[in-house]
Amino acid sequence: MKNIYASIITIGDELLIGQVIDTNSAWMAQQLNKIGIAVKKRIAIGDDAQEMRQALDVESQEADLVLLTGGLGPTSDDITKDFLCKYFNGKMVVNEAALENVKYLFEKIYKKPASQVNLLQAEVPDVCEVVQNKRGSAPGMIFKRNNTIFVSMPGVPYEMQGIMNELIPYLQKKFELPSIFHRTILTAGIGESALAEIIADFEKQLPEEIRLAYLPNYGMVRLRLTTLGFDKEATQKIIDEQFDQLKSLVKKYMVTDKDETMQEVLGKLLLKNNKTISTAESCTGGMIASLLTSIAGSSGYYNGSIVSYSCEIKETLLHVKKDTLNNYGAVSEQTVIEMLDGLLNKLNTDYGIAVSGIMGPGGGTPEKPVGTVWIAAGTKEKHVTQKIQQRFERAKNIEVTSVMALNIMRKFILEE
Amino acid sequence: MKNIYASIITIGDELLIGQVIDTNSAWMAQQLNKIGIAVKKRIAIGDDAQEMRQALDVESQEADLVLLTGGLGPTSDDITKDFLCKYFNGKMVVNEAALENVKYLFEKIYKKPASQVNLLQAEVPDVCEVVQNKRGSAPGMIFKRNNTIFVSMPGVPYEMQGIMNELIPYLQKKFELPSIFHRTILTAGIGESALAEIIADFEKQLPEEIRLAYLPNYGMVRLRLTTLGFDKEATQKIIDEQFDQLKSLVKKYMVTDKDETMQEVLGKLLLKNNKTISTAESCTGGMIASLLTSIAGSSGYYNGSIVSYSCEIKETLLHVKKDTLNNYGAVSEQTVIEMLDGLLNKLNTDYGIAVSGIMGPGGGTPEKPVGTVWIAAGTKEKHVTQKIQQRFERAKNIEVTSVMALNIMRKFILEE
Repeated sequence: MKNIYASIITIGDELLIGQVIDTNSAWMAQQLNKIGIAVKKRIAIGDDAQEMRQALDVESQEADLVLLTGGLGPTSDDITKDFLCKYFNGKMVVNEAALENVKYLFEKIYKKPASQVNLLQAEVPDVCEVVQNKRGSAPGMIFKRNNTIFVSMPGVPYEMQGIMNELIPYLQKKFELPSIFHRTILTAGIGESALAEIIADFEKQLPEEIRLAYLPNYGMVRLRLTTLGFDKEATQKIIDEQFDQLKSLVKKYMVTDKDETMQEVLGKLLLKNNKTISTAESCTGGMIASLLTSIAGSSGYYNGSIVSYSCEIKETLLHVKKDTLNNYGAVSEQTVIEMLDGLLNKLNTDYGIAVSGIMGPGGGTPEKPVGTVWIAAGTKEKHVTQKIQQRFERAKNIEVTSVMALNIMRKFILEE
Repeated sequence: MKNIYASIITIGDELLIGQVIDTNSAWMAQQLNKIGIAVKKRIAIGDDAQEMRQALDVESQEADLVLLTGGLGPTSDDITKDFLCKYFNGKMVVNEAALENVKYLFEKIYKKPASQVNLLQAEVPDVCEVVQNKRGSAPGMIFKRNNTIFVSMPGVPYEMQGIMNELIPYLQKKFELPSIFHRTILTAGIGESALAEIIADFEKQLPEEIRLAYLPNYGMVRLRLTTLGFDKEATQKIIDEQFDQLKSLVKKYMVTDKDETMQEVLGKLLLKNNKTISTAESCTGGMIASLLTSIAGSSGYYNGSIVSYSCEIKETLLHVKKDTLNNYGAVSEQTVIEMLDGLLNKLNTDYGIAVSGIMGPGGGTPEKPVGTVWIAAGTKEKHVTQKIQQRFERAKNIEVTSVMALNIMRKFILEE
């Protein structure tokens, strides 16, 4: 039994000029990992036949599986299908099922006639096996050379994901796959180096087949153990033992021992306690509400929020006193406390978060520089406040502040 | 004069298991493009010396510039610096300026003592030129082999960006660079294939040195022309002529002829007209507010919003009638109209957007399946409504709905 290695090749000039961020690769890597296929390399190249040839030549030597996305659209900048046809010495033929699919999509879903260009999408090289694409007009295509399997898919994430869902069982049949295990701890309130010092001895004794990674993000650090093996039970036992050790070492900073986000953790906590939450947001402008409602089922604990960007709205909707705003400013402990009180009085909710700050690039003063944030979280009876100093650019300041606010709320609830 | 080509190598196991999405590559590619360096390839590999060696061997043959990120952290999974030291036959020495920087960061910013592990960050191979990292403790490093320049940077986006800012003038001095021009049109309300048919003749006559790309995203399509040349003025003249032709062909669907987002376009329009906007959001849960406030200076046109996720909040804060909710449901034209009226009456604002829908995965019914959305946009005097059927998963449904709502508002203002 051997490990199966995959490479991901994403195709498209837009990936090279940075106009779009590649989210496909991460998603595909996750899906492969779940079934025990390790991704060894990801490559992004332009819509360029020579680059494609070179990449495929190299990867056919090194990978058991090569996933390609992009360049299958109906327009002239999309050359992947023609290239693959030549590369695998095929000729173009109409795939009847794909043709039916294109016709169906245009008649029933898009409700307009399919053009000649659209119908051409149903042509595929005669040397490939087709994976139907129910979400769009470009079919997936499976090619083989030597012992490597190549799969070409559209770059539109939603379409690629649909094809991947059909591909996964195919790959599980095709390869004899080991089990991969990941164990993840999300920590908050401690930096990467400080964590490293706490777990230095643990790292030293870690069996060679288990890898430890530090993944800092949003001002938090995720610790991840990874291992894989063909003896599923034995492999799982070893990593779980190590994971228990790791957890006990960083318990103080642990938000969750699952691979989940702060908003998922808080949402589960609220659901379990049968409590509701609302937010009064100034500088985060709705981001905290947006994070909370990104979770399916959040209506079980989330009622609504007030985004009080201007001082006027702080006064009219949240009843922050004019005196408070004048004497202490919109970014102050007094203001967020009154925002929180106003929120909890106005909305019929158990918990509330109130945030006000200066996210930049403008708006800073010597006393309150860009990045100054006040957060209040609590109930009608009790609350905590915290002042934070962010040091990123605007978008990042908003993100990190939002996640930190959720964490302050989470800790408040746990300590209540 | 020759074109200068760059490759980007991102290093980190987390990029291969899909736990984090790589935003660094896109950002770096944008910065290089702006100064006329074309990115030809992007590669992501694990924290693995053999993979690094192979990637560097290949790229040193093919690229003039290789940017590396990641693997410079203080922890044991970070092996990039040691690898580079061996690869370029150097030996580790302390860089005094980097050491000063680490000490400064810990004393003044993090306000805790620097550990031995932190201080080691100031060691660099003696064969590199150091680019100081004011935003973190791992310095940037420049190496040379044959005619290729290699730059190693931390993977933390904020730190990488700081180093890139210092690197750009260095690269401009080092290479004789052509001018790259991009011209971008954002279209809405038309699909990729339909656009392709409209501009088919235009594409055929397009000079070979100008490339056209279709970039679909958020239910919109971006069209981009790209060219580069050493004669700056002549190159610009040619692409601008072509761009004018393209614009006249797709005028009907054009949102903007600049590389900007829907929220930027709407924000500028509001600023120009000296008007304000608010949102009443149900299913988008604050995302529209968050998009609007993601723009620096949005306080010039944005006052606040009400996120009315529950029916109760729709009634209490927006004064939607109980009868309306009972008779037509929360996802209905009647409800969004009343949400809009309630919003405009409550908040002192010129324009309002109200949205209610079912984002999934649950909550659908045969009459109102998942993806059903009602949007109202307008003023106290006049409004438009639109029903939309989304067909993605939850996160994407929320995103696309939010951007479509902004577009409906934009069109309303223009046609007013």
